[in-house]
Amino acid sequence: MSLVSRDPVLLTPGPLTTSLQTKSAMLRDWGSWDAAFNAVTAKVRQQLLKIIHGEETHVCVPMQGSGTFSVEAAINTLVPRDGHVLVLINGAYGKRMARLTEMMGRRVSVFETPEDVPTTAEDVERLLAADSSITHVGLIHCETSTGILNPLEEIADVVARHGKGLILDAMSSFGALEIDAKKIQFDAVIAASGKCIEGPPGMGFVLVRKSVLEKCAGHSTSLSLDLYDQWVYMEKTTQWRFTPPTHILVALHTALNQFEAEGGQAARLQRYTNNYQTLMAGLEELGLQSFLKPEIQAPIIVTVHAPVNAKYDFKTFYETVRSKGFVLYPGKLTQAETFRVGCIGAIGTQEMRSAIHAMKDALAEMV
Amino acid sequence: MSLVSRDPVLLTPGPLTTSLQTKSAMLRDWGSWDAAFNAVTAKVRQQLLKIIHGEETHVCVPMQGSGTFSVEAAINTLVPRDGHVLVLINGAYGKRMARLTEMMGRRVSVFETPEDVPTTAEDVERLLAADSSITHVGLIHCETSTGILNPLEEIADVVARHGKGLILDAMSSFGALEIDAKKIQFDAVIAASGKCIEGPPGMGFVLVRKSVLEKCAGHSTSLSLDLYDQWVYMEKTTQWRFTPPTHILVALHTALNQFEAEGGQAARLQRYTNNYQTLMAGLEELGLQSFLKPEIQAPIIVTVHAPVNAKYDFKTFYETVRSKGFVLYPGKLTQAETFRVGCIGAIGTQEMRSAIHAMKDALAEMV
Repeated sequence: MSLVSRDPVLLTPGPLTTSLQTKSAMLRDWGSWDAAFNAVTAKVRQQLLKIIHGEETHVCVPMQGSGTFSVEAAINTLVPRDGHVLVLINGAYGKRMARLTEMMGRRVSVFETPEDVPTTAEDVERLLAADSSITHVGLIHCETSTGILNPLEEIADVVARHGKGLILDAMSSFGALEIDAKKIQFDAVIAASGKCIEGPPGMGFVLVRKSVLEKCAGHSTSLSLDLYDQWVYMEKTTQWRFTPPTHILVALHTALNQFEAEGGQAARLQRYTNNYQTLMAGLEELGLQSFLKPEIQAPIIVTVHAPVNAKYDFKTFYETVRSKGFVLYPGKLTQAETFRVGCIGAIGTQEMRSAIHAMKDALAEMV
Repeated sequence: MSLVSRDPVLLTPGPLTTSLQTKSAMLRDWGSWDAAFNAVTAKVRQQLLKIIHGEETHVCVPMQGSGTFSVEAAINTLVPRDGHVLVLINGAYGKRMARLTEMMGRRVSVFETPEDVPTTAEDVERLLAADSSITHVGLIHCETSTGILNPLEEIADVVARHGKGLILDAMSSFGALEIDAKKIQFDAVIAASGKCIEGPPGMGFVLVRKSVLEKCAGHSTSLSLDLYDQWVYMEKTTQWRFTPPTHILVALHTALNQFEAEGGQAARLQRYTNNYQTLMAGLEELGLQSFLKPEIQAPIIVTVHAPVNAKYDFKTFYETVRSKGFVLYPGKLTQAETFRVGCIGAIGTQEMRSAIHAMKDALAEMV
């Protein structure tokens, strides 16, 4: 343990390490009714929309709360009371989407594959052909519980061909992986401030097809999570309906400016890919194996099999690595002992290489 | 307009002016799974509970989102599916509570008095005697739309005598006005980070009677807003169920430490009362009249009648006062032209006196 109290590097799927510039933006107080603040809201909405090239087709509706709040808001608002959602599951976030859909009283069907098996376009084709009552398909782009990448483009094509609405949870991919509204069709893509845009956590946002959202009045059973109401009020007044997280929004704006200055999504993906490759090479040096095959692994978060070492336990490993300056993330699998390492946040290959060294030292101490 | 870009003083009902110490706490990133962060969560929950002397009877459940999210979470979790909520209304926040209760599908009755007339204990006595199907009473302690104070203690006594559950929206009073769980009976009191505790906005919290919350499994129709689930998970793991607003929570902790150092609720009320009295004396100098009679006015936010001046319009007045360093708040009444001035936040009589001078100059410029 160092005597110097520096903040550890967060190798987590969010909250993650943000830049000092982003955090410093929170050193100011803003009135939520004030024009200066509302201008920031408008700018953030534009910046987020631009990332998916959705300026002509979609609108951005920010929402208070964690990313899950925005997922629930999207489903409660977009799916009519008599709608039927097919949720494609291969991890905890797919399960969560199905659960919140059921809790709000909408009809839900699920299709579940093992945590290391992506849903395929053929699966979705078969499921939609078999049940014409399905109105919407819920898909997790990159499942944070393993890091698995589902084939968005292929699935979106099938859903569009069947004339159904695609609701995409892009929580841990948005800003890093390409999601282009001009290339693929979706009704809503959902993400949050504290992920690959590298803002602080505290708000989410939904990018919704405008022609769809216009028809969603009265769907929601929740006032707080009514995206339609939030959108209409914001368009009319430039303000949020209910108290916005002012500091978080302004920090997100600052993070978006840095995202643009870095070169946008392509540059962000390149940096994360470099982090990922540095991590994978390092894990090999340590004799550790990742859970997923490389072809279905997104360069966002990596699930790693626990070392074959009788003395290993995650808690000790976590605390030892933490004392060396790096915060890992626990595994979320039931069938295998794993831990996770995030490749995202305001970090580069230098931090990742140092993390590998810290893991190596920690493992050596456990023998 | 000054050439110096200092932040204006927020004379608003929240987001409000916070101390630099509170804002500076947001200059660090925290892992949401990390023990150091979870210790802060535990400490904040204790600190909030202590303010109402509820350590033995109640539990604190923090919730992501704005204060309204916590109000909705409290009602959706505490009121059974076949419950019946009587909402006492004399302003926008009472109306909002009724609307969100209706939207989630619970039975709701309302009792509405004019915006300058508090609900009385006699009203509640009569209403509860007339309809035994009512299970819960929803009350707004201090209605931010005018600043009116409803008689909490008397109403709580009636509700308790009838054996009903009181759900108290104390958004703009918590921490400033006394709410003592040892003196009055309530099932839930709801507030948020960015009000009289003087933290940044971005999360709310509900202080719930433990014996009540224990019986609330399965009530909520919303996963995100399920207080029971949030509580059970937090007790079991020390963590939040879904991504917490880490920076906001740590800033709230810092604000609570300053609250305690200042002398707690009594000291906070004294400072706000001084601000309020300075404001009222100043308004008299300016020939301006407050909307409410002093005996029903909380020292939190004051609604002021617009000046009798043909040249007056709020937008110009607001912008002129703002250019002098003070952010006012618009009125929310339909029947009278008003504006509002908050007495809360990390400000004292010096700021309030300067604000009076700024208003005086602004009015002089409008003649």
